[in-house]
Amino acid sequence: MPVNLSTPVAAQLLPVAGVSLGIAEAGIKRADRKDLLVIKLEEGATVAGVFTTNRFCAAPVTVAKEHLAANKGIRALVVNTGNANAGTGEQGMIAARTTCAELAKLLGYTPEQVLPYSTGVIMETLPVDKIVAGMPQAIANLKADNWFDAAHAIMTTDIVAKAVSRQVQIGGKTVTVTGMSKGSGMIHPNMATMLGYIATDAAIAQPLLQQMVSEAANRSFNCITVDGDTSTNDALMLIATGKSGVTIDAASRTAMQAVITEVATLLAQAIVRDGEGATKFITIKVEGGKDEAECKKIGYAIAHSPLVKTAFFASDPNLGRILAAIGYAGVGDLDVAKLKLYLDDVLVAEKGGRAASYQEEDGQRVMKQNDITIRVVLNRGAVNATLWTCDFSYDYVKINASYRS
Amino acid sequence: MPVNLSTPVAAQLLPVAGVSLGIAEAGIKRADRKDLLVIKLEEGATVAGVFTTNRFCAAPVTVAKEHLAANKGIRALVVNTGNANAGTGEQGMIAARTTCAELAKLLGYTPEQVLPYSTGVIMETLPVDKIVAGMPQAIANLKADNWFDAAHAIMTTDIVAKAVSRQVQIGGKTVTVTGMSKGSGMIHPNMATMLGYIATDAAIAQPLLQQMVSEAANRSFNCITVDGDTSTNDALMLIATGKSGVTIDAASRTAMQAVITEVATLLAQAIVRDGEGATKFITIKVEGGKDEAECKKIGYAIAHSPLVKTAFFASDPNLGRILAAIGYAGVGDLDVAKLKLYLDDVLVAEKGGRAASYQEEDGQRVMKQNDITIRVVLNRGAVNATLWTCDFSYDYVKINASYRS
Repeated sequence: MPVNLSTPVAAQLLPVAGVSLGIAEAGIKRADRKDLLVIKLEEGATVAGVFTTNRFCAAPVTVAKEHLAANKGIRALVVNTGNANAGTGEQGMIAARTTCAELAKLLGYTPEQVLPYSTGVIMETLPVDKIVAGMPQAIANLKADNWFDAAHAIMTTDIVAKAVSRQVQIGGKTVTVTGMSKGSGMIHPNMATMLGYIATDAAIAQPLLQQMVSEAANRSFNCITVDGDTSTNDALMLIATGKSGVTIDAASRTAMQAVITEVATLLAQAIVRDGEGATKFITIKVEGGKDEAECKKIGYAIAHSPLVKTAFFASDPNLGRILAAIGYAGVGDLDVAKLKLYLDDVLVAEKGGRAASYQEEDGQRVMKQNDITIRVVLNRGAVNATLWTCDFSYDYVKINASYRS
Repeated sequence: MPVNLSTPVAAQLLPVAGVSLGIAEAGIKRADRKDLLVIKLEEGATVAGVFTTNRFCAAPVTVAKEHLAANKGIRALVVNTGNANAGTGEQGMIAARTTCAELAKLLGYTPEQVLPYSTGVIMETLPVDKIVAGMPQAIANLKADNWFDAAHAIMTTDIVAKAVSRQVQIGGKTVTVTGMSKGSGMIHPNMATMLGYIATDAAIAQPLLQQMVSEAANRSFNCITVDGDTSTNDALMLIATGKSGVTIDAASRTAMQAVITEVATLLAQAIVRDGEGATKFITIKVEGGKDEAECKKIGYAIAHSPLVKTAFFASDPNLGRILAAIGYAGVGDLDVAKLKLYLDDVLVAEKGGRAASYQEEDGQRVMKQNDITIRVVLNRGAVNATLWTCDFSYDYVKINASYRS
C-alpha cells in the first residue's frame, strides 16, 4: 500500500484558467477503465517539457519533441494508458502521428499543435482505432475542474492518483499551479516511467518555461528511483496559460520556480510513495561531497541496492549493506574512515565501522517507521544531494511478474 | 532451488598435491555448522589473487593484500563464514591480524605467511576467540582429499556446494586443477560476494600466476551478477604447488590458462545457478559492439533490471523490458533501429520494434526453459561479451529480508 499517501481531495485541486481536461474509456487494453485523456489549452499558452533519455524512446516522445520544436503553438495534449507505443518501430511513429492528426481534426487545429503521450506495455501495437474512437467522448467531457478524474485516467500500476495544487501571490495577484503525475515502477532518474503535467495560469515565455521545467525536474523527478529502470516514455510537461494576468520575469522568477519545484517534488515523491510494493518511503541525503555527481552516485548506489531495499522491507537494521553500497558506488578516492552514516538522528557508523554509541534497538526503532532518512556525511566537500526511494517487497515481484496478465 | 546445479560428487574432486584442507565447527554464528576452513600449502607454492574493488573492503582483504605483498611465501589460508569482518574499522584490522598470528603460531609460520578470508554479515565484531578456539580442530582435520567438505565449510546462503576438478596433459604429464567457490547473493562483477580458491599442482611463478588469475577472473567471476551488489569481501585465489613436476612457461601457458579459466567459469556460473531465489539461469550475449565496455554496459543493464528479472521469473515474454534496458544502458550513440534481439534462436526484435516473424508462443516456449540465452546483436563493431545472471523471485526477497534472523 502507498506509504503515507492518500488519494487527493478533489475539491483541493484547483482549476487552471486556460486548461480543460476530458477523459474517456476507450478500451485500449481493458474495458471499463479510464484510459484516455485530452488536455486542451486556450490560444497563447506556452508549453515546455523534459523527456526520457532512453535510446529506445517511444514514438510519442519523438513526435512530441518534433511538435514542440515546430513552435506552432501547442493547443492539446493526448495521453493514453494501456500501451506505451515503444519498441514499435516505424509503425509506432505512424500511430503517434495519426493520433495527433485525428485529434487536431476534431478540434480544428493542425497536427503539430497536438502532443502525444503513451504509457503501458512496451512492444505491442498501439490500437489507434480505439484511441480515435474514444476522442469524441473525451472532448465532450472537457472541463477546467477535471484534474481529479484526469489524474485517475493516466494511472497504470499506480494504486493512488497523484495530483496537487498550490497558489502563490506574485505582484499582488494570485497565481495557481496544479499538477498531476503517474508512475510507480520502472522509476529512475532521467526519467522515471512517469508522466507529469503541471499547469499554471502565469504567463511565462517559452525559453524561460523550458529552463524552469528543467530545473524543477532536476530537483524532483530526477531525484527518485524505485527500481533503477529508466522508461522509454517519460515526460514532464509544464504549461503556462497566462490567464492570471501575471507575467513571470527575472524579478518574480524565484518565487514562481519555488512553487513549481514544490509541486514537481510532491508529485515525484508521490510516485515513490506509491512505488510498486512499497512499504517504506526512504529519503537519502548525501552531504559534504566534492560535487553533486559523487553525492548522487553514492545516493543511487544505496537506493538501487536490492540488499538495502530488502533489509528496509524487513525493518532489519542490517546497516552494513548501506556501507557496502557506499563502498561500491564508484567514488574511487573515497576515504571510508572519514564518513558518518546516520539513520534519522541515530549515528550508525563512523571511522570505518560501527559507531561506539550505536545500539541495535535505536536502529530497530527507526527501521520500523514508514518514513526513514538515511544520511551519509562524507566530510570531503560542501555539496549535498537528496534522493527518494522505497523498499523492495514481495509485492514488487508479484506486481512485475504479472503485469501483462 | 539451484538451476541445473547439484552437489558435486566427492569422488570427482581430485586432491592437488601440496594442498591440504581442514575444517571445523567453530560456532562463529551458530552451533553445529562447518564454519572454519584452514588450507595448508607445502613450502614452495605460489599464490596470487584478485580482490573486491569495494572502498569499504573488509579488514581481511586489506590484510591478505599486505601479506601477499610481503612475499614471505604463503603457507596457509584461513576462511571463516558467519561474519564478514567488514565495516569494522580498526578493531576489524586487529581481528584479522590476530587470526593470522594465531594460526601461524599453531603451524610454525610467521603471520605474513597466512592469508585471512571472512564472509557473512557486515558491521559486526568478528569473534576471534571462537575462530582461534576452532583452529586445532581444523588443523587436526587437514587432508588432501577434503575439497568436498571444504566447499561445504565456506557456504553462507548457498544451497549447494560448488567445486570442480579438471586435468590437462602438459608435456606428457598430468596437471590437476581443483577449485571451489561460495556465494549466491550480493553478486556483481569486480567482484561478487564470493570466495573462490583454485589450486593446481603445476609450478607457476608468481608474476605469471597473477596474470593468469586476473585473466581467469575477467572471463568468469567478473562476468556474473545476481543483484548488482559488489561485496566488501570478495577474493579469487589461485595456488600453484609445483608438485606435478610440470612448470608452466610461455609455450604451455595457453593450455593451462584455458583449464584454469574453465574451472573459474564453472565455479562462477555455479554461483549464479545457486543465486538467491534463482529459478532461471540466463546467459546474456552482446555481439557486434565497438568495444567490450559497451557490450558489458548493455549486458549488465539487462542483467540488473528488476523488471527483466521478474519477467523471466514469471516466464512471461514481456521482452519490451529488455529493449528498454538496452536503451538506458548508457551507450549514447546507439542506433536501436540497427540491433537485433534474440531469445535463444527466436528473433524477437529488429528495426526498432517487434520482428515481423515473432510469435508470442515462440517466446513463451523459450521463457519456460530453465536455461535461457538472450542475444543482442548490435551490428556496430566486432567485439562480443558474455555475462551470466539469474531471475528475481519471491524467494530473493524472502532470503534477503531474513538473512540476519
